[in-house]
Amino acid sequence: MNRIHNFSAGPSALPQEVLEQAASEFVNFRGHGASLLEMSHRGKVYDAVHDECIEDLGSLLGITDDYAMVFMGGGARTQFALIPSNLRPTGAAGFINTGRWAQGAVDEAAKLGEVRELWSSVETGHDRVPEQGEVACPQDLQYLHYTSNNTIYGTEFQYVPDSGDVPLVCDMSSDILARPVDVTKFGMIYAGAQKNLGPAGVVVLVIRKDLLARSRDTLPELWNYQKIAAKNSMLNTPPVYAIYMVGLVAKYLQRHGGAAGAWERNQRKAASVYGEIDADGFWTGHAQVGSRSYMNVTFRSPSAELDKAFVAEADAAGLSGLKGHRSVGGLRASIYNAVPEESVATLVEFMKEFRRTKG
Amino acid sequence: MNRIHNFSAGPSALPQEVLEQAASEFVNFRGHGASLLEMSHRGKVYDAVHDECIEDLGSLLGITDDYAMVFMGGGARTQFALIPSNLRPTGAAGFINTGRWAQGAVDEAAKLGEVRELWSSVETGHDRVPEQGEVACPQDLQYLHYTSNNTIYGTEFQYVPDSGDVPLVCDMSSDILARPVDVTKFGMIYAGAQKNLGPAGVVVLVIRKDLLARSRDTLPELWNYQKIAAKNSMLNTPPVYAIYMVGLVAKYLQRHGGAAGAWERNQRKAASVYGEIDADGFWTGHAQVGSRSYMNVTFRSPSAELDKAFVAEADAAGLSGLKGHRSVGGLRASIYNAVPEESVATLVEFMKEFRRTKG
Repeated sequence: MNRIHNFSAGPSALPQEVLEQAASEFVNFRGHGASLLEMSHRGKVYDAVHDECIEDLGSLLGITDDYAMVFMGGGARTQFALIPSNLRPTGAAGFINTGRWAQGAVDEAAKLGEVRELWSSVETGHDRVPEQGEVACPQDLQYLHYTSNNTIYGTEFQYVPDSGDVPLVCDMSSDILARPVDVTKFGMIYAGAQKNLGPAGVVVLVIRKDLLARSRDTLPELWNYQKIAAKNSMLNTPPVYAIYMVGLVAKYLQRHGGAAGAWERNQRKAASVYGEIDADGFWTGHAQVGSRSYMNVTFRSPSAELDKAFVAEADAAGLSGLKGHRSVGGLRASIYNAVPEESVATLVEFMKEFRRTKG
Repeated sequence: MNRIHNFSAGPSALPQEVLEQAASEFVNFRGHGASLLEMSHRGKVYDAVHDECIEDLGSLLGITDDYAMVFMGGGARTQFALIPSNLRPTGAAGFINTGRWAQGAVDEAAKLGEVRELWSSVETGHDRVPEQGEVACPQDLQYLHYTSNNTIYGTEFQYVPDSGDVPLVCDMSSDILARPVDVTKFGMIYAGAQKNLGPAGVVVLVIRKDLLARSRDTLPELWNYQKIAAKNSMLNTPPVYAIYMVGLVAKYLQRHGGAAGAWERNQRKAASVYGEIDADGFWTGHAQVGSRSYMNVTFRSPSAELDKAFVAEADAAGLSGLKGHRSVGGLRASIYNAVPEESVATLVEFMKEFRRTKG
């Protein structure tokens, strides 16, 4: 079988040239006579991979010396508990609740201390994010947390919320590096790698260094941002291979115009799919137009039966991963950075043909 | 360069046939038109990989239906806090302190509740583990924790401690599946994969199911063994690729005689290196003879200068990773399951020649 067109919501498509490079140096890493998977994380070879990944990601994100980059295992959802454990030793944290994972961040933080939900879209099926200026941030909060892109519902912030002097914390798992962002607006950004950065198995954290002082010594050391940052994410054995793959993806992005280049491609890709959705009354988008995601396009055909037929026929035609999340139903096309424009064009052609024959 | 002889303490050697299989199916996984790294963990392809890994590991370990197998990210040291969080909601936990990582388990558990150190080898540089029967286990403990193999010092339990009715918890990171064990003696076994099971990035937990009831709902869900076990380690995105590699290593072990086969090879390997160490007075072993590890052989030459020369000359000859841990110094040969007998024979020849020319 040739390479499929991969619209999986995550783990999701990786650039083919990255996969081919990784395969070619898998058994004997760059002539060192062993696989990278077999090498000590304290050795020179892995050290260079680790530091290069930090440097390249930092450069792509445009981070300054005021920020530390940290790698952790356990998945982004583990951070739902680690963020309040580190950044809210006392006081309250605020939340903008735009969906399942935003809710998860509220729930976990609530187990460990005081939370305030400032805004929620739960009553309208999370079909939108707040408009700019709609959420006022109380200045006594320890931090304000939001989810920049909501994979399940296909909504995405098109701006960075204003939190005043309160550190802004963003779960950017599903749209990090999909567009340029001004990191200086954030206290902390975190992202599970398996959407836009690489494979599952590592979370990338960008933390403003002054916030590291909030981590208390009473925290278990592997939950303590300050201690992990002080050891350059080598306090324990890091998830070596996932970090290496993230580094390859970073180099790939650098070769292809950085975050700005990705944003140009992502705008074209999204415009093409939403254009088809808006073509006539056949498709219905889940997200309100102003909140539409550039990463996850959620939509449905006129019936659940047709949705099912769409997924099956698409799959048979080599277009994979188009079933909507079980909590929303319908269809979803995840078009992360690594999904080629050619795959999106093939999808749109398939949608047009489906609409023509079934409409 | 040809393949090196890899004596790294971890991440460490993987079987060459495993690496070659992984490389060959890296870009297009078993004809599915995508890399396994690009596939949803909720899809059929990954599901089969996941469940097969659980089945194969379970069969190699000889676990019964009374036990659950769980995969987590974050490294084995994260478990130092998660074990007391789950298994000791109240009361005290007991510890046998045989080295750095055993001490880490004490320290983290002490941050979260009551600990009792029942035995320690700290005063003799952790050169031995207790003799069988030397540690009496108070029956009011919530669990008794020990480290079966101590990588830094090269000591290893040659028996399973008797904890009476108290659940026995073992950090088996560095000797899991190095020999057959009777799992029914344990309340819980856990192991970071990067010594004997696969690459860094996943921890394997084997937990007696009745102990899962100790996990309280107030725990963050990604720290809750019961919730993770209930979802077959798919509560969040698991570290897909590391689990796949562990599965390949399990299949490799099955093809090569299981834990019993590994134990035969490991006995021959260790006997060969210790035989050279005991040949005359040139080498000094760190561990007391009755506590010697079959996985990590710690020793030194007559001087720090000669140790340094040994590491450099060995490295030049393609024998890698022989420097002792910085806290003990000297030399260390890690001869985990995946280190071929041929590599050990090459090492012993090199040691003999070094002793002949420098002694």
